[in-house]
Amino acid sequence: VADPGLDCIAGGSAPLGTAEIVAVGSELLTAFRLDTNSLFLTGRLNGLGIEVRRKTVVGDDRAGIRDALEGALARTDLVILTGGLGPTDDDLTREVVAEALGLALEEDATVTEGIRRRFAARQLVMPENNRRQAMVPRGAVVLENVNGTAPGLLIERGRKMILLLPGPPGELQPMADALVAGPLGSRAGRRRLARRVLRVTGRTESHVEQAVQPIYSRWRAWHPPIETTILAAPGQIELHLTAGAEDEIAAGGVLEVATAELAAVLGADLFSTDGRTLEEVVGNLCRARGLSLAVGESCTGGLVASRLTDVPGSSAFFIFGVVAYSNESKTAALGVPAETIQLHGAVSKPVAVALAEGARRRGRADVGVGVTGIAGPGGGSAHKPVGTVVIAVAGPANGLSVRSYSFPGGRSQVKHQASQGALDLVRRALLDSDDAIAPARVPHAHAPSRHDPPE
Amino acid sequence: VADPGLDCIAGGSAPLGTAEIVAVGSELLTAFRLDTNSLFLTGRLNGLGIEVRRKTVVGDDRAGIRDALEGALARTDLVILTGGLGPTDDDLTREVVAEALGLALEEDATVTEGIRRRFAARQLVMPENNRRQAMVPRGAVVLENVNGTAPGLLIERGRKMILLLPGPPGELQPMADALVAGPLGSRAGRRRLARRVLRVTGRTESHVEQAVQPIYSRWRAWHPPIETTILAAPGQIELHLTAGAEDEIAAGGVLEVATAELAAVLGADLFSTDGRTLEEVVGNLCRARGLSLAVGESCTGGLVASRLTDVPGSSAFFIFGVVAYSNESKTAALGVPAETIQLHGAVSKPVAVALAEGARRRGRADVGVGVTGIAGPGGGSAHKPVGTVVIAVAGPANGLSVRSYSFPGGRSQVKHQASQGALDLVRRALLDSDDAIAPARVPHAHAPSRHDPPE
Repeated sequence: VADPGLDCIAGGSAPLGTAEIVAVGSELLTAFRLDTNSLFLTGRLNGLGIEVRRKTVVGDDRAGIRDALEGALARTDLVILTGGLGPTDDDLTREVVAEALGLALEEDATVTEGIRRRFAARQLVMPENNRRQAMVPRGAVVLENVNGTAPGLLIERGRKMILLLPGPPGELQPMADALVAGPLGSRAGRRRLARRVLRVTGRTESHVEQAVQPIYSRWRAWHPPIETTILAAPGQIELHLTAGAEDEIAAGGVLEVATAELAAVLGADLFSTDGRTLEEVVGNLCRARGLSLAVGESCTGGLVASRLTDVPGSSAFFIFGVVAYSNESKTAALGVPAETIQLHGAVSKPVAVALAEGARRRGRADVGVGVTGIAGPGGGSAHKPVGTVVIAVAGPANGLSVRSYSFPGGRSQVKHQASQGALDLVRRALLDSDDAIAPARVPHAHAPSRHDPPE
Repeated sequence: VADPGLDCIAGGSAPLGTAEIVAVGSELLTAFRLDTNSLFLTGRLNGLGIEVRRKTVVGDDRAGIRDALEGALARTDLVILTGGLGPTDDDLTREVVAEALGLALEEDATVTEGIRRRFAARQLVMPENNRRQAMVPRGAVVLENVNGTAPGLLIERGRKMILLLPGPPGELQPMADALVAGPLGSRAGRRRLARRVLRVTGRTESHVEQAVQPIYSRWRAWHPPIETTILAAPGQIELHLTAGAEDEIAAGGVLEVATAELAAVLGADLFSTDGRTLEEVVGNLCRARGLSLAVGESCTGGLVASRLTDVPGSSAFFIFGVVAYSNESKTAALGVPAETIQLHGAVSKPVAVALAEGARRRGRADVGVGVTGIAGPGGGSAHKPVGTVVIAVAGPANGLSVRSYSFPGGRSQVKHQASQGALDLVRRALLDSDDAIAPARVPHAHAPSRHDPPE
């Protein structure tokens, strides 16, 4: 096949309907690495109504890259190649694409200067081989890389478009967002796919399925119809809703109605309807109420604090955390009485409560969280096997919740699920406190709370 | 291209050297699902000395599956298709493969009976559409599915082999293991692939490349030759070495020699030659020296502690961590003098040192680590922009190191790189302490250390 799909076709502004993604990198053909960039890109492309038809991974090898590019160009409107734009000998994407399209490569002095400045800002001299990254196929548009040295490239070929994006996700994602806001968005059609991610805690996948199946099965007959996917992740279940319509408002509107139907069934177990993470939801609840948070962690080893401080602006609500791995440090740093540990064991409700109260008191916070448990692989017993975790939340005001869990999986899964459990228990405590402190709004102040924490 | 690679070639017992994997399923083309089966399969194939040259994902669509199969067959010895073997209308793999190879599909009564029995065991009647799963292309070998209804299929085509495997990992994996032990193992050559992952800190990708390129370029001429890939990740550079040789011992031996050559050039910047993470390396160093560790973190928000406690058995060396986000908690929990913060600012060498010393003292640990910085997006200034981080390590013994960094990227990248910097500074302090406490082994006790920490 000589020149598949590379011929110029009139009408450069025909909308881009389909795409293929080609990930370049021999490491992506090992047993250790997956191409995850394609997930991010697919989300953005779907948002523009562009469908991904095929994904290919090839190694750092000229024939493989060229063959994948030519095949994709013959089949589809938009080809995105990721990776292989680095400064080293085995970064071949730029050269192979230029060669396949018959375009000369020329050094772009502005790009070289930008790379040189990037090194200089870190008190480093640009190595000569980084000049490779400034080579641009004639006619290509240079895409700024705000987080790295490799610029992206946009090449138009008749009504088709070819994008070369850097492999590191932190460099690729802002570049893709700029493309969506700019040249890619303006070449997409009017049709839009709207997508919504709902997140649920406190129920298993089958229980979520049983609750929502009668609802979403009706949605297939709606105009536009809604596609529903249920995905289980450790500590949470996700519902992905997708609707394709003539414009964003129609697609978004139908998902709004669908989300309200699910919220009515799932109640407080539904914690996010806009893709926000559990730590973001907790952060927003704290900020809205002007409450501060302190954490005393044992088995999660700092993961709860680290997730809370992943939230931008978390210094407004998160003030203090202690990782008290040894019994001595539980006592010294958080005032957990040594006799409580001796009497009940380090993994027990009294110790979880003492950790929560100690963190709250020593951090002078409104809410304290305590986590203790056995992450494994060692430390388990017949009575308290690996995966046994106890979590307590002290506050706000006089509130106190404590709960025992038994999490499946290995060390990292137990740590993750325990951090999820801790954040969720805080969330429910904050929701409960609304009912407690606003009795005037509740007809029967002593009626059971809407948000009884599970025990 | 009419019938690419499908022609019968004499010599059906030539060893299989290369493979492609085609994953079938429209859900794998959404933003939410990755094909992870290919990692498992790649591990098993590499173990047999079979190299994976390309991976493709196509949707549940006839033209896409057929085109991917035909392309793969033209290029490679072994094609593995995963998924699309279910009982529903959109499960097309079986039919499309039979059609592309010109093989009639016939119902295999034994397979039907097996599926029927599977349903009966659960007190269920086999739905009629499950008979689709008993359709077998003429001449194909049926592969037993111990965990599901869809059998796998093995088709030999001249010297090439085509495998159809079910998509669910629990069904695919035992089937692949049986193939490795049986027909796939006996068709593989004696040749074996060995692989090694080396990890480096303290140098950029280009600087690693400059140092090692003269070495690894010679390896291509070795017998067996070594393939080298350099990968940049935030805070570390990876070198992947691969050698294919006549047997496992020869392949492993040549990588051992290559690793020693790199170690000589990279010195203390090379921290792992067996795939271990930085936290595992730090954990092992602590354990080997009987030293304990305490952490005082600000901008990393618990991430350093969380990474250290990801190491199984970390309670042997990690005892105590404090996440002191506010200035008050830095003073209250770790004894950082308020005047030091006022005088130098929270992000400064004196505060980093006070955090490290406070963590060490209050945790009664041998080594204390302090991290302070600006993770962003807010909090930066012209003098101390987002990404400014200062890290200090106090101990072991009288050792003290402190270093300022300027990390690129957003909040999570800064957090990650700062945690990487902190773990690396601990690692170098522990290595240095060997020199300090074992002067008898060093000819000139006052000569500069082998492991001078960069400053």
